[in-house]
Amino acid sequence: MSWEDKVRKVIPYVPGEQPVGKVIKLNTNENPYPPSPKVAQVLKEYDIDDLRKYPDIYGGELRDKLSERYGLDKDRVFVGVGSDDVLATAFLAFFDSDSPVIFPDITYSFYDVWAQLYRIPYRVIPLNDDFRINREDYVTQNGGIVIPNPNAPTGVEKSVEDLEYIISNNPDSVVIIDEAYIDFGGRSVVPLTDKYENLLVVQTFSKSRSLAGGRIGMAFGSKKLIGYLNDVKFSINSYTMNRLTVAAGVAALEDEEYFEETVGKVIATRQRSAIRLRELGFEFPESSTNFIFARHKSVPAEEIFSALKKEGIYVRWWNKPRINDHLRISIGTDEEMDAMFGFLADFLNR
Amino acid sequence: MSWEDKVRKVIPYVPGEQPVGKVIKLNTNENPYPPSPKVAQVLKEYDIDDLRKYPDIYGGELRDKLSERYGLDKDRVFVGVGSDDVLATAFLAFFDSDSPVIFPDITYSFYDVWAQLYRIPYRVIPLNDDFRINREDYVTQNGGIVIPNPNAPTGVEKSVEDLEYIISNNPDSVVIIDEAYIDFGGRSVVPLTDKYENLLVVQTFSKSRSLAGGRIGMAFGSKKLIGYLNDVKFSINSYTMNRLTVAAGVAALEDEEYFEETVGKVIATRQRSAIRLRELGFEFPESSTNFIFARHKSVPAEEIFSALKKEGIYVRWWNKPRINDHLRISIGTDEEMDAMFGFLADFLNR
Repeated sequence: MSWEDKVRKVIPYVPGEQPVGKVIKLNTNENPYPPSPKVAQVLKEYDIDDLRKYPDIYGGELRDKLSERYGLDKDRVFVGVGSDDVLATAFLAFFDSDSPVIFPDITYSFYDVWAQLYRIPYRVIPLNDDFRINREDYVTQNGGIVIPNPNAPTGVEKSVEDLEYIISNNPDSVVIIDEAYIDFGGRSVVPLTDKYENLLVVQTFSKSRSLAGGRIGMAFGSKKLIGYLNDVKFSINSYTMNRLTVAAGVAALEDEEYFEETVGKVIATRQRSAIRLRELGFEFPESSTNFIFARHKSVPAEEIFSALKKEGIYVRWWNKPRINDHLRISIGTDEEMDAMFGFLADFLNR
Repeated sequence: MSWEDKVRKVIPYVPGEQPVGKVIKLNTNENPYPPSPKVAQVLKEYDIDDLRKYPDIYGGELRDKLSERYGLDKDRVFVGVGSDDVLATAFLAFFDSDSPVIFPDITYSFYDVWAQLYRIPYRVIPLNDDFRINREDYVTQNGGIVIPNPNAPTGVEKSVEDLEYIISNNPDSVVIIDEAYIDFGGRSVVPLTDKYENLLVVQTFSKSRSLAGGRIGMAFGSKKLIGYLNDVKFSINSYTMNRLTVAAGVAALEDEEYFEETVGKVIATRQRSAIRLRELGFEFPESSTNFIFARHKSVPAEEIFSALKKEGIYVRWWNKPRINDHLRISIGTDEEMDAMFGFLADFLNR
């Protein structure tokens, strides 16, 4: 017997590489544009005396602004340290049963990590061959449902109608719709939280609001659902949202114009990139996100991945069944994408 | 059957009130002095373009500086969102056995909340009547040990020798020493982490570094222990430490002179306050922290608590067995303490 026998053994999530130095970073779905200049303004004027005091346990002004922006009462809004924090807390709070939680086989690779960590039984449901979710597969006994929409890393969006079909057929489970990428052209199910008490919708500031380094995620749901989520959150860490992040988040949220402008630019570059990628021999489903999940017709993904990396261009590749022939390419600036296309044009015509 | 049957039911931790407006706030052990002016400087000059990128998964420069400051290799340092985040993660990581985790009956009231949340069996060990820990009580079969030193809310410090006695007699459990208040005159056991692989020492920026609103906690231990802690952390949320907090924390940590000055002022005010409180008829053990845990000889604590609150002076009172005759009074500025003493002099001489 040793102290190590009492340690919880886990296989942690492996995030995308964070290389330093001058590289083109298209591997972690970050926004290529900086956050709103209003964020810099707020930091310049920040009264640091506030930092000596604990922050608001609900996320303070940030929750207030989210409540306004999304038109939901404050007690239907939850704020966390990135959507990973929100999702991890939701897994712990809502999936406390013996039935398996269900989610797609090809999806955000943190879901099974949380399930294993908290010893939640789970079952993955294969996507169709064209990477689509079949809604009937989710009308089955379960301990909870998680569906990312659009899905990652596929980029494929599911219709609100299909999602409502799944939600309405599962009144006895909490259904989590993970909308990390929704702002890049997708249709949100946030309005359905008025109707379904068991629906939790999770979003983030990391992608569309250029604040991956700020760590802000949020969830919307019924008052009752958010109440349960808060109970668990307050059983882990009362004060998760630091005052600086709250101030930065509020500033970003208030600059709606900048938000629309930068999101618009990412979507335009995505459309341009889709054309160019097809010309280069890639195939992929239509993306509703800030990345494209593509397979080359003749050259193996791993080979392209390694060649790009050598060139200082980072994209994401997983050595996993069903997707090891794909690359997930985040949408950068036009210049970054052109640099990649320039290299690929040479490389693929060897 | 309803979705609510699948929800994890918990009784969350209740933090001290965070009143707004002009009050004297001596209820949550915050530092009365602002953080180092270097923190303001760093925010003024902060390049917000960085915020679009995910932060370092280990806490980046903040971990590097902590490693320097405390003279431990980087892989022996862990950084989290306040010491609550660090402790919650440590509970989940290290107390995965059927034997009960042990900690004092009068102590930080989050310990039993975490144990309940993660379904960790636990047993509380009564302090002596003078609120002291009897070291022999901790030489017993257990699934882990948590000892805050100095203890809160008592303020009482245990000697390094006694703690080493407990640690050396428990090689088969992880022993957590929670040093949230150590900088106010206590002797740290961080050096013992060189010798005991199973010792985790937890500290925070919330008290002595005036950054409760910044959310920074840290842990020190052996490379192996910190490795296990990271595995669990990376199974919950890879990116907990946002870039702004990291920058603020580094600036605070670098200003050693300011740190010593403000800590010195708090200690001086504590000594002054101890004299004044005794004159007013209070009794208490010697405090090694930034608060005093005091009992009045004739007037019930609840009565004093309510009268102070009415006056806009917030201290902490728990309606719990053994301590409901005590008040925990955080050390404020001399002016804040004098305002309280002025009121108490009147009130207690009714």
